[in-house]
Amino acid sequence: MRKVAVVGVGETKFSGAQTKTGVELFSEAAMDALNESQLKQTDVQALFLGNVLGDFSEGQGSIQAFAAENLGLHNIPANRYEGACASGSIAVRDAFMWVASGFYDIVLAGGVERAATMGTPLATRTFAMFGDSRYEYPSGLTFPGVFGLLTHLYAAKHGIPLPKLKEQMAYTSVQSYHHGKSNAKAHFRKEVSMEDVLKAFMVCTPLQLHDCCPFSDGGAALILASEEVAKKLTSKPVYITGIGQASNGPLSNQNDYLPRIRARELAVEQSYKMSGRKPEDIDVCELHDCFSTAAIIAAECLGFFEYGTAGEAWLKGEADIGGKIAINPSGGLKAKGHPIGATGAGQVYEIAKQLRGEVEPERQVEGAKIGMTDTLGGVGATLCNLILERGW
Amino acid sequence: MRKVAVVGVGETKFSGAQTKTGVELFSEAAMDALNESQLKQTDVQALFLGNVLGDFSEGQGSIQAFAAENLGLHNIPANRYEGACASGSIAVRDAFMWVASGFYDIVLAGGVERAATMGTPLATRTFAMFGDSRYEYPSGLTFPGVFGLLTHLYAAKHGIPLPKLKEQMAYTSVQSYHHGKSNAKAHFRKEVSMEDVLKAFMVCTPLQLHDCCPFSDGGAALILASEEVAKKLTSKPVYITGIGQASNGPLSNQNDYLPRIRARELAVEQSYKMSGRKPEDIDVCELHDCFSTAAIIAAECLGFFEYGTAGEAWLKGEADIGGKIAINPSGGLKAKGHPIGATGAGQVYEIAKQLRGEVEPERQVEGAKIGMTDTLGGVGATLCNLILERGW
Repeated sequence: MRKVAVVGVGETKFSGAQTKTGVELFSEAAMDALNESQLKQTDVQALFLGNVLGDFSEGQGSIQAFAAENLGLHNIPANRYEGACASGSIAVRDAFMWVASGFYDIVLAGGVERAATMGTPLATRTFAMFGDSRYEYPSGLTFPGVFGLLTHLYAAKHGIPLPKLKEQMAYTSVQSYHHGKSNAKAHFRKEVSMEDVLKAFMVCTPLQLHDCCPFSDGGAALILASEEVAKKLTSKPVYITGIGQASNGPLSNQNDYLPRIRARELAVEQSYKMSGRKPEDIDVCELHDCFSTAAIIAAECLGFFEYGTAGEAWLKGEADIGGKIAINPSGGLKAKGHPIGATGAGQVYEIAKQLRGEVEPERQVEGAKIGMTDTLGGVGATLCNLILERGW
Repeated sequence: MRKVAVVGVGETKFSGAQTKTGVELFSEAAMDALNESQLKQTDVQALFLGNVLGDFSEGQGSIQAFAAENLGLHNIPANRYEGACASGSIAVRDAFMWVASGFYDIVLAGGVERAATMGTPLATRTFAMFGDSRYEYPSGLTFPGVFGLLTHLYAAKHGIPLPKLKEQMAYTSVQSYHHGKSNAKAHFRKEVSMEDVLKAFMVCTPLQLHDCCPFSDGGAALILASEEVAKKLTSKPVYITGIGQASNGPLSNQNDYLPRIRARELAVEQSYKMSGRKPEDIDVCELHDCFSTAAIIAAECLGFFEYGTAGEAWLKGEADIGGKIAINPSGGLKAKGHPIGATGAGQVYEIAKQLRGEVEPERQVEGAKIGMTDTLGGVGATLCNLILERGW
């Protein structure tokens, strides 16, 4: 298999409800990626697009075909991927394979969603269909409920008193909002204090407002190319050196592992093995912090901290820029936002920008050479990890 | 890239509304494919699944993850593809690439749908979202409307009087129902006469009842393996030797080509080129006859007949078993049925069975060595073709 590089990236601002269609949002991101890579539309051989709620949010299924045409990518093969929140990452992983295999030289991958447009109550109920429909959804379980339960389980399993854990969780949000404030693409651009977080209204015990990511509208796009093509196009190719993906069934069937997410541990293992890297090699990581607890669990599954210790590490600054591992310098899902199908592609956008040293100075991880993304779909039903490295 | 073979196939009966979940339906087909190939669950490295309406028909998104677990394919990467009616074919094409590249040796691909469960009125309106949402859907265009318009355009373009074209169309249905009668998996298992078809109620001028495929429930599954593995597993591997895929935007933007489908012409060209085959090499073809006109247009785009002549060829028996090209010996979408996300995988099931000489004697294409599938998604938004050949 051939080496595959990210040679162009684009992203819309992640936002609340807005008026552009999904096709328009993705096209905005994709045109930025095309322009950055100095490619023409006719150079692009295929499109790989993550989108979850397009049919529900704007009555548009098969958005990939309409996006391809709107972009002037006439008649190219266009695939849509639905893996809940991990849709964008799965699209990128698949695009990787079509280039790695030698079948295509240049492809467009990404994701788009108008989740904010639906409004939080409807989006929450609609999105709950991406959990198990047989037992869990009928019992009233939506995603805040899932992560509320996991929070209690995490506290019990590791013997951390809930007020202590709540403090750790709150700090993950303070850090995320702090980075989001400097990110021109972020949904929320304001600081929050520990007091703000711990006084905010309860969403689902013990998760308060800032423990939860918003539903966002937004799109993200990447141009992937073979090594040979990449070397001609850019002096700063970012190579995808590791990929990992795994699945899980209903939450209740993951019992032996919870609150760890078994699918993540496996996907992480695959991506480290393929890239030959270890957790300590990673300089910057965009991980799936849909809820504060999710951030803590993810950082542990990724191997950055021992099980039961990530919250404390956050409080000590070890998960921040300049710490042991820079986690979510973009602001993450909680502050940068969560346009579901676009999120994974947005994480790759951020890592590519970080490795190229092109983000706002306040949140640049200086000298970052190796980055990683982590995206969780549903109740751990789909996990996808990517490792990206400087090619110069 | 490596050669890739179909080494096991399974399919449920295609039917009207039934009580199994999508996970159960797909599992039934997949277990048949696994058993036939004599593989264990732990041999399967990834799942590629087409599904369109799972969220609408049973409130289950991300069905791929739950299907993987239900099948005992614990934690394998599982992808869901939505390309409207072509979803299953796209899933198979993608699965092909992951094996061809050398990344996986054995994967499961297929599709599932509970479209009949929704009932025809709701399914028709819901499925219309997979056409263009900006102009065409708001104008009231559903899929029978699309193909009604294309029928008038076809008649006008080729100067065929509508009563003559209607007779040709009716005969495509008579032939399809005749084959469906012998197919144990078919949704409709009865003969219809020309008189039955031409006297049936009008669905959307000029399309009458038997000119339209039903919405069906059903699942289809295939095990794909590398050549090396295939040789160990079976004496009758069916190789995928050509793949093609292309996209189109809204129907109204395809004006210059209509009633031809440009995306199909391109996908067909790709698959012939890759396999080194020509239309005259194909012994049996399962093509996307969602409506009678669609069958006629498809047979022409596939290169089996000159433009404007396919309907006449049908009347002469040239599109039947024993004719120039055996088209839809399964009964096709109109008689075998159309479980949307499963249809493309079901076409591959049929071709594999035909090449292996394993279908009912009444509809076996004797000595068939090379087969082809053709699946159309939406208003020509997605086209996918596969060429399959005997490996013995």
